Amino acid sequence: MFITFEGPEGSGKTTQARMLATALETLQCKVVLTREPGGTLVGEEIRKILLGPLGKDLDPKCILLLFSAARAQLVRHIIKPAIDSGKIVICDRYADSTRAYQWGGDGIPRDEVERAIQLGTEGLEPDITFYLDLSPEEGLRRRRTDSARGAESGWNSMDARELEFHQRVREAYLSLAKEYSSRFYVIDAAGRIEDIHRTIIEIVNKKLQSRIGGKV
Amino acid sequence: MFITFEGPEGSGKTTQARMLATALETLQCKVVLTREPGGTLVGEEIRKILLGPLGKDLDPKCILLLFSAARAQLVRHIIKPAIDSGKIVICDRYADSTRAYQWGGDGIPRDEVERAIQLGTEGLEPDITFYLDLSPEEGLRRRRTDSARGAESGWNSMDARELEFHQRVREAYLSLAKEYSSRFYVIDAAGRIEDIHRTIIEIVNKKLQSRIGGKV
Repeated sequence: MFITFEGPEGSGKTTQARMLATALETLQCKVVLTREPGGTLVGEEIRKILLGPLGKDLDPKCILLLFSAARAQLVRHIIKPAIDSGKIVICDRYADSTRAYQWGGDGIPRDEVERAIQLGTEGLEPDITFYLDLSPEEGLRRRRTDSARGAESGWNSMDARELEFHQRVREAYLSLAKEYSSRFYVIDAAGRIEDIHRTIIEIVNKKLQSRIGGKV
Repeated sequence: MFITFEGPEGSGKTTQARMLATALETLQCKVVLTREPGGTLVGEEIRKILLGPLGKDLDPKCILLLFSAARAQLVRHIIKPAIDSGKIVICDRYADSTRAYQWGGDGIPRDEVERAIQLGTEGLEPDITFYLDLSPEEGLRRRRTDSARGAESGWNSMDARELEFHQRVREAYLSLAKEYSSRFYVIDAAGRIEDIHRTIIEIVNKKLQSRIGGKV
């Protein structure tokens, strides 16, 4: 089982990914929690490039290929081996982020984005994708507050993009939710953390039941 | 005019690229000398990843995409603007390195390699490619000697690959020389540096003459 979390910065996806991992581990499920870009040594180096000061001067194609490079390593060294050994993989961002940000936000043609994704993933798509939907205004407001509080994931080069960029990203996510409706679950990120967690657990539970007859 | 130098480490391509740049500058040509991976801030960061200690644990697809990411930035920020303003661009390694090392050496299917190259270059190919041909044994011998002397470009993760890898890379280069025969010039790198330089100048001169009626 491969579960991804998507949404803007500030939507709480990292928190929800961790809460789901903990809940599943409590139930003796073997869980691998990882993130993009990152999750491997090279991925974390690529993350530093993308979200650091260099990030704002990068050509969109360079960004597309860097995310895909990080993903290639993550898929082959972490995600595929974990899935093959029966673990539940939870990933904080995955290929849909590339679709939303590089196709939706940066306007790279969809077929080029898909070619880069294919090179990175070899076609591996999630079983469930939770998209935590939040207005760009609210997402950026939350990020500013968190950064001021010295949160772990500080204000980065992606946050610094103009509001219209973040609006295009949201529209792309909502369009992807329709395109991949069998795996996409759109969740209002304005809700309470515990309520969102409960919704997520219910959906995972249902999917696990339909798969292996198990129950979370 | 876009000129690339290709060949194994130790073949003298970096030296020849510099000598050609100097010769053309002496003749008042406007020259941009750059290299791959590198040539931009992000490219040099990617170079550190690829040729540093992390390099040996990278998945071939991750390597393919990292080289392509560095190239995307280099093409858009350095090479294309320079060509558009009438300069001569000399690049130490370019897309043929990806063909030789990732297709020839690592065995990634050619169509996947070409898709990654296309994303990075948008189809920009060199006018002239000098391939400095050297047996892998001699190339590695030279590299070991240079590294022991503390040369600028030390022993790296690519040098450390097995001899068969370097043999496959050479075969791929020779096959590319046939495939792209109109721009490829195979030069025996075992010759004297000055002789090789003279051969290169003659070829560039001929190409420039045929283009603009100028003479080096």
